[in-house]
Amino acid sequence: MPLVKVHVLKCRTSQELSMLLDTIHDVIVASFGVPPRDRYQILHEHEASHFWALDTGLDIARTEKIILLEIVSRPRSRDAKVAFYANLARELQARCDIEPSDVMVTMINNSDEDWSFGLGRAQFLTGELG
Amino acid sequence: MPLVKVHVLKCRTSQELSMLLDTIHDVIVASFGVPPRDRYQILHEHEASHFWALDTGLDIARTEKIILLEIVSRPRSRDAKVAFYANLARELQARCDIEPSDVMVTMINNSDEDWSFGLGRAQFLTGELG
Amino acid sequence: MPLVKVHVLKCRTSQELSMLLDTIHDVIVASFGVPPRDRYQILHEHEASHFWALDTGLDIARTEKIILLEIVSRPRSRDAKVAFYANLARELQARCDIEPSDVMVTMINNSDEDWSFGLGRAQFLTGELG
Repeated sequence: MPLVKVHVLKCRTSQELSMLLDTIHDVIVASFGVPPRDRYQILHEHEASHFWALDTGLDIARTEKIILLEIVSRPRSRDAKVAFYANLARELQARCDIEPSDVMVTMINNSDEDWSFGLGRAQFLTGELG
Repeated sequence: MPLVKVHVLKCRTSQELSMLLDTIHDVIVASFGVPPRDRYQILHEHEASHFWALDTGLDIARTEKIILLEIVSRPRSRDAKVAFYANLARELQARCDIEPSDVMVTMINNSDEDWSFGLGRAQFLTGELG
Repeated sequence: MPLVKVHVLKCRTSQELSMLLDTIHDVIVASFGVPPRDRYQILHEHEASHFWALDTGLDIARTEKIILLEIVSRPRSRDAKVAFYANLARELQARCDIEPSDVMVTMINNSDEDWSFGLGRAQFLTGELG
């Protein structure tokens, strides 16, 4: 269920973008314990003039490989979120050659009643999803 | 007031896109009881490589007509949301030939103070909107 | 930290877009008291057919200069939000020649644990950010 919006600069090949989305999804599945087919991703490629991500004074070096994830999800525990950030940075470095300094995330929380996966129904309320 | 972001694949004519947005808006008005001019919509067309919407194992068949709505709104009741999902699926099938299996929604909730419709004011706080 | 998504119609030069983003950022810094390098902005340019922003019956005249901001932020006080809306409208008029009637904002609230600025860490939880 999380809906994952991925913002990147226009600098990657189709193969690199595909690997990026696959890696993010694998980390979502592993970190939040969702089913493998719980994959909802939207990828936006931006011109540099249209995408700013400085560092709030944290002295984090950004490159053109910067990615920013917006994730909409039912509530997750603080521990699960913290583990997710670490897992994500590690896997993106290992599989996509993206430095942890280029990985930014913000999460937005909603509730069971806020999701309809299709068929006009709210599957977390009907009991179709637990 | 809801802000409605509509994500689709690049597969529709201008006329089809226009009818899609009109239909979504009509369902918003009917389901949430908002004024007809409470229309705030953003449409994103994506390449298939940039937009994933599987089914969380629910066995829901997707086609290229898949639409995913992100809706930002003041709080709505659970009943209103459930009715909205059903109305939306029904009207999109009737008017846009989109199967209910291709209609996904996620809602994000905020508050009165989170909206300024213009003029530098928060109209839900000033009393201009009820 | 606020993540600011800016939606506009395709009608501006690169210089105008740059000034628009700079102005919005300056107002964010002044209104919310965030560091100057707390700049996270995504700009989407839309065709008129893909971006609707009517007025909820408030009799607010829109032009092609309409901008709609979605802001994801840790909680801010009501007073800070109200001041931000007013400051934003004033500065956009002064510096970008955008009428207050063309400035719309919606804010989405999340929490300390919902942000990772890089390095696989949640900097509001680690104490790196206050």
